[in-house]
Amino acid sequence: MLAFDVFGTVVDWRSSVIAQLEEFGRAHGVDADWAAFADAWRAGYVPSMDRVRRGELPWTRLDDLHRMTLVDLLAAEHISVGDEAVDELTRAWHRLDPWPDSVAGLTRLKRRYVITPLSNGNVSLLTNMAKRAGLPWDCVLSAELFRHYKPDPEAYLGCADLLDVAPDELMLVAAHRSDLRAAREAGLRTAYVSRPLEYGPGRQVRMPAEGEFDVLASDFLDLADQLGA
Amino acid sequence: MLAFDVFGTVVDWRSSVIAQLEEFGRAHGVDADWAAFADAWRAGYVPSMDRVRRGELPWTRLDDLHRMTLVDLLAAEHISVGDEAVDELTRAWHRLDPWPDSVAGLTRLKRRYVITPLSNGNVSLLTNMAKRAGLPWDCVLSAELFRHYKPDPEAYLGCADLLDVAPDELMLVAAHRSDLRAAREAGLRTAYVSRPLEYGPGRQVRMPAEGEFDVLASDFLDLADQLGA
Repeated sequence: MLAFDVFGTVVDWRSSVIAQLEEFGRAHGVDADWAAFADAWRAGYVPSMDRVRRGELPWTRLDDLHRMTLVDLLAAEHISVGDEAVDELTRAWHRLDPWPDSVAGLTRLKRRYVITPLSNGNVSLLTNMAKRAGLPWDCVLSAELFRHYKPDPEAYLGCADLLDVAPDELMLVAAHRSDLRAAREAGLRTAYVSRPLEYGPGRQVRMPAEGEFDVLASDFLDLADQLGA
Repeated sequence: MLAFDVFGTVVDWRSSVIAQLEEFGRAHGVDADWAAFADAWRAGYVPSMDRVRRGELPWTRLDDLHRMTLVDLLAAEHISVGDEAVDELTRAWHRLDPWPDSVAGLTRLKRRYVITPLSNGNVSLLTNMAKRAGLPWDCVLSAELFRHYKPDPEAYLGCADLLDVAPDELMLVAAHRSDLRAAREAGLRTAYVSRPLEYGPGRQVRMPAEGEFDVLASDFLDLADQLGA
């Protein structure tokens, strides 16, 4: 069975969020460096989850963490809009476009494996995203179900438990080493997929060492080839 | 958004379980009245969940409740097989065939609504069932996620919470009055679908009174018509 990290691995959050911020700017007659705004929004992601992981915040779903970060960023830009507009913009993270190979690759992988997201995004976010983008998941699993954000081991082990398989019968597919290392520590198998454009063009991406993870793939079609799907 | 009861509402558990029991009998060279065996297995369903609901058993997933009932029924028939054969037969409930209109109706309803199971079956059971039967769920929600079996209100309210909608923005679709009444009590909208063959041919099924539930439908295609999908 295959569990997929989503933000950056399945979908191109950066281009999608920038496009929606530009649209928000036009609709509300405000301007900012929307690429920098998107990067700052994403930069708030791990620290906000870490507050939950350390127990400084009670369990808080990712939509609400995204909103808290957004409110601060809008204030810093002196942009003032109503609560409904903030809610609507927060849901930009429900409307992310897949990488060009994602749907075709998942469709092939689904023929041979059970495929599920294992994302820090909440269930409604992942469900709305999948419906809009045509991601053909067999089920929708989220950190929300375990009330533990990745890289807490409870998220990886909870996923295997709900799928009723041993940890080593489940492979995490992700574009991020930290996620894969935590999955490996929890006993899962691991597949690294290179997403060199995740943080924008012109970034140098260092591939993991051969043997650090079970599979190294250039995209989901290559992953399907390597996994015989 | 639409949440569906599954056993009896989406899939024909009785014919499917009887067929698999007959196959089990042939494979192991044992015989019994397999229709009566299937009915007895199903008759153990509510009492076993009630033990969990009353707190006499800790949370126990449906696969394990199904197995406990099966072990007793095999013993009563003096049928002795290995643990793996019992496990395999328990998973008969993962391999249930949909009613003839289910996939076509769900496919239509999915175009307009988010569709999810809300079943007492565990996540792996529902995921395996959907994959085999081609049920096009947007996500897979189960009593297992709330550790409360229907008709506990936590199951209905937990489903609305994960989908991030108010209870009255969610409609339960079911062939069973007791499930629908509990959903209505929790604030959900309700659709009754008639499944006169659930307990076998020749049964008299009394339709609910007009107005008891929000929608009365003869099958999922009729439901799609009535819901404009």
